[in-house]
Amino acid sequence: MSTSQAISSIDKNLGIACSPISVPERLLLGPGPSNSHPNVLKALALQPVGHLDPFYIKLMAEVQDLLRYTWQTNNRLTLPMSGTGSAAMEATIANIVEPGDKVLVAIKGYFGNRLSDMASRYKAEVHTIEKQWGEAFSLEELENGLKKYKPDVLALVHAETSTGVCQPMEGIGELCRQYNCLLIVDTVTSLGGVPLYIDDWKIDLAYSCSQKGLSCPPGLGPFTMNIRAEEKLLNRKDKVPNWYLDVSLLNKYWGSDRVYHHTAPVNMNFGIREALRLLLEEGLEASWDRHRSNAEILWQGLEELGMKMHVKPEIRLATLTTVQIPDGIDSKAFASHLLNHHGIEIGGGLGTLGGKVWRIGLMGYNSRIENVEKILDVFKTDLSKFKL
Amino acid sequence: MSTSQAISSIDKNLGIACSPISVPERLLLGPGPSNSHPNVLKALALQPVGHLDPFYIKLMAEVQDLLRYTWQTNNRLTLPMSGTGSAAMEATIANIVEPGDKVLVAIKGYFGNRLSDMASRYKAEVHTIEKQWGEAFSLEELENGLKKYKPDVLALVHAETSTGVCQPMEGIGELCRQYNCLLIVDTVTSLGGVPLYIDDWKIDLAYSCSQKGLSCPPGLGPFTMNIRAEEKLLNRKDKVPNWYLDVSLLNKYWGSDRVYHHTAPVNMNFGIREALRLLLEEGLEASWDRHRSNAEILWQGLEELGMKMHVKPEIRLATLTTVQIPDGIDSKAFASHLLNHHGIEIGGGLGTLGGKVWRIGLMGYNSRIENVEKILDVFKTDLSKFKL
Repeated sequence: MSTSQAISSIDKNLGIACSPISVPERLLLGPGPSNSHPNVLKALALQPVGHLDPFYIKLMAEVQDLLRYTWQTNNRLTLPMSGTGSAAMEATIANIVEPGDKVLVAIKGYFGNRLSDMASRYKAEVHTIEKQWGEAFSLEELENGLKKYKPDVLALVHAETSTGVCQPMEGIGELCRQYNCLLIVDTVTSLGGVPLYIDDWKIDLAYSCSQKGLSCPPGLGPFTMNIRAEEKLLNRKDKVPNWYLDVSLLNKYWGSDRVYHHTAPVNMNFGIREALRLLLEEGLEASWDRHRSNAEILWQGLEELGMKMHVKPEIRLATLTTVQIPDGIDSKAFASHLLNHHGIEIGGGLGTLGGKVWRIGLMGYNSRIENVEKILDVFKTDLSKFKL
Repeated sequence: MSTSQAISSIDKNLGIACSPISVPERLLLGPGPSNSHPNVLKALALQPVGHLDPFYIKLMAEVQDLLRYTWQTNNRLTLPMSGTGSAAMEATIANIVEPGDKVLVAIKGYFGNRLSDMASRYKAEVHTIEKQWGEAFSLEELENGLKKYKPDVLALVHAETSTGVCQPMEGIGELCRQYNCLLIVDTVTSLGGVPLYIDDWKIDLAYSCSQKGLSCPPGLGPFTMNIRAEEKLLNRKDKVPNWYLDVSLLNKYWGSDRVYHHTAPVNMNFGIREALRLLLEEGLEASWDRHRSNAEILWQGLEELGMKMHVKPEIRLATLTTVQIPDGIDSKAFASHLLNHHGIEIGGGLGTLGGKVWRIGLMGYNSRIENVEKILDVFKTDLSKFKL
C-alpha cells in the first residue's frame, strides 16, 4: 500500500522523542493564570462534540446567558472570543475603530499601552492621557481629555494587572455619552472578582479573559458590546479588517442563524460553561465579597510583616495586590525560591514597576483563606533569608 | 464588609441556573472536530502552570520541535497560534500581505473563498483562478495564473475539507520560486493524516488546526513560515495590522527572548504537546499509512453498497471522503438519525455541494478499523429507511 504523493522521505532528525507529560504542581498566586476549579478541568477533559451539534448550540446559548449574568448586561452581542483575553481586547478595537477615528487611551499601566499600540494598527489617530503607575484617573482628568481630544472612542482599564489599581467607574459612562464617544473597558482582572456592572456603568464595549476571576484555564476571551457600539459597527464604510474577530460574522454563528464561521474551541467552551455555572451557583456578590475579604486579610498580614502596599486602599484591587519589595531583598531570588521550593508562583513588576513590587493574585478558585495563610507563612519564614 | 464601588445592585433576572455539564457521547466522523486521544484529554485536565514558568518554557520548545517533525520542516518560526485553524490562516495573510500586494488564490472549494475574503481585508489586490469543487489544479493551470497575474503570493488549499480533494503538490513550490512569489498552503485537513513535506515542497507559509489529524480538541492553529517569508515580514513598511497574530511579536515570546506577549492557552498546549508526542511515537509514515488504509476500506465498503465517491481516486483525500448522496434519499434525515440514534456525526455538503454529498472524516484518533466498520454497518442497515 502506497502513501500517495510521498515524493520525499521523512527527515528522522526532526522531532525529539519525549516522555508523557508530567506537570509540576503549582499554586498560582501571580497575575494569572490562576488555578482552575477542579470541575472545570473535568469538563475540559470530556470528548468534544461537533461545533454544530444541537447539544453544542444549546451550550453556546448557556455560555452567553451566563456571561451576561457575570457581566451584568443585557447585551445581545455577548460571547467568548476563540482566543485569549488579548484577542478579545483586539476584537473591541478591530470592530469599532475605523481609519482616522480618534481614540483616546487613558494609560495608567502596561495594558493601557497595549490598547494604544493596537488602536494605531487599525489606523486610529491615537491620543493618550497618562497617570503614574499605581494611581487612577479622576472624572475631571478624564473630562479634560474628552474636551481636549474629542475622541470617537475612550479606552481604559478597569483593573490594571500591572499596577493593582481598580479605576473607579462612577460617572465615566455618562461623561462619554455627554461627549458623544464610545467607552471601551478592559475588565481582564475584574470580571467575576470585583464589582462590575456593564449596563449600569454605561460601558459600550468590554473584554476579559477566562483564567482569572472565572477559574478556567486561559484560552477564551469574553467580549460584549451594546447597541451603541453595534450601530457604529453596522455603519462602517469597509469590512472589519480582521476576519477572525469580525463580530458581524461571529454574530451569525453565535446568533440565531448559526452560520458556520470557524470551528469553535469546543472543550474550552465546556470549561467556561462550567466555570460560569459555578460562579452563578456561588452568586456574583458572594464571589466579590470573598475576593475582597481574602485580599483584606492578605494586606493586613503583609503590613504586619512590615511591608507596604503600592496602591492606596480606596483604589486597591481585590484580585491583584502590588506589594513593595522591601529594601535590600533579592526579589528575583525570593520569587524563584517560592516557585522551586514551595511550588508557589507570584509575579514580578512589569514596566516601570520592575524590581519595585511583587504582584500577588488571589483570583477565582484561588481566592481562599488557606492560600492567603500559605503565602503569608512563607513570607514570614523565608523572606529574611533573601537579604542582598 | 463592603464590596467597594458597588454603586449598583445585581440584576437577578440575568443568568439561568443550569445543571453541571453532561455531554452526549459522539463518534465524530464529520469534517472535524474529530474525537481526541484519551491521553490528550487527560493532559488538558491538568492544573495550569504560569505561562512564564521554566517548565512551560521548556514545554513550548518541545511543542515547536514536535511541530517541526510533524510538518517536516526546519523552520525556526514554527508555533501554534493561540486560536483555531482560522486564526492561523489569518496569521499567514496578516503577516505577509501588505496593502497593494497581488495575491492569487487558487480556489477549488469553500476554504479558497475564505482565503480570498481574508486577503482583501488586508488590502491585497486579490485575483482568483477556479476549478470545480471536486477537482484539483494542474501545474500548467497554476503556471498560467502566475504568468497572467504576477502575484506576490499564491495561496491554495492542500486538503480541501469541503470537497475531499488532495491537491498534488509536486512542482508548485519550484514554480512559485521561478515566478518570484511566496506560497501559502492550507494544511488544515492534511497535517498528520496525509503526506506533507513543508521544506521539500518549498512551501513558504502553512497553517493547520489541532482537531483533525492531531487528535486534539480545537483551539490551536499550528503555523510555520520559512526564511523567504520572514524576509518579507522584516521588510514591511508598516506594523502588521493585527496585534494578536503579529509574528514579529510572537517570535519574541516563542523565540529565545521569551518576552511576554499574551497569556498562552496553557492547557491547550499541554494537550497538543501530548498529541504531537503520540504522533511521533507512532511515526508520521505509520500514521499516513493508517489513514490511507482505513480510507481505502471505507471507499470499498461504500462502493459495495452501490455508492459513488465524489472525487476520482488519484486526488482523493484519505482524511475526508465526499460520497455522493444516492438519488431519492433524505440526506438530512439520515444524518440526524445517525447522530440521534447512533451517536455518529457525519457532515453534509458545503456550498455548491450542499445536498449532493456527505462528508465522512477518518482523522487522527478516529482513523481506526472499528470506526470504519461501524459506519459501514449503519449505512448498510439503515440507509434504505430514508427513501423520500
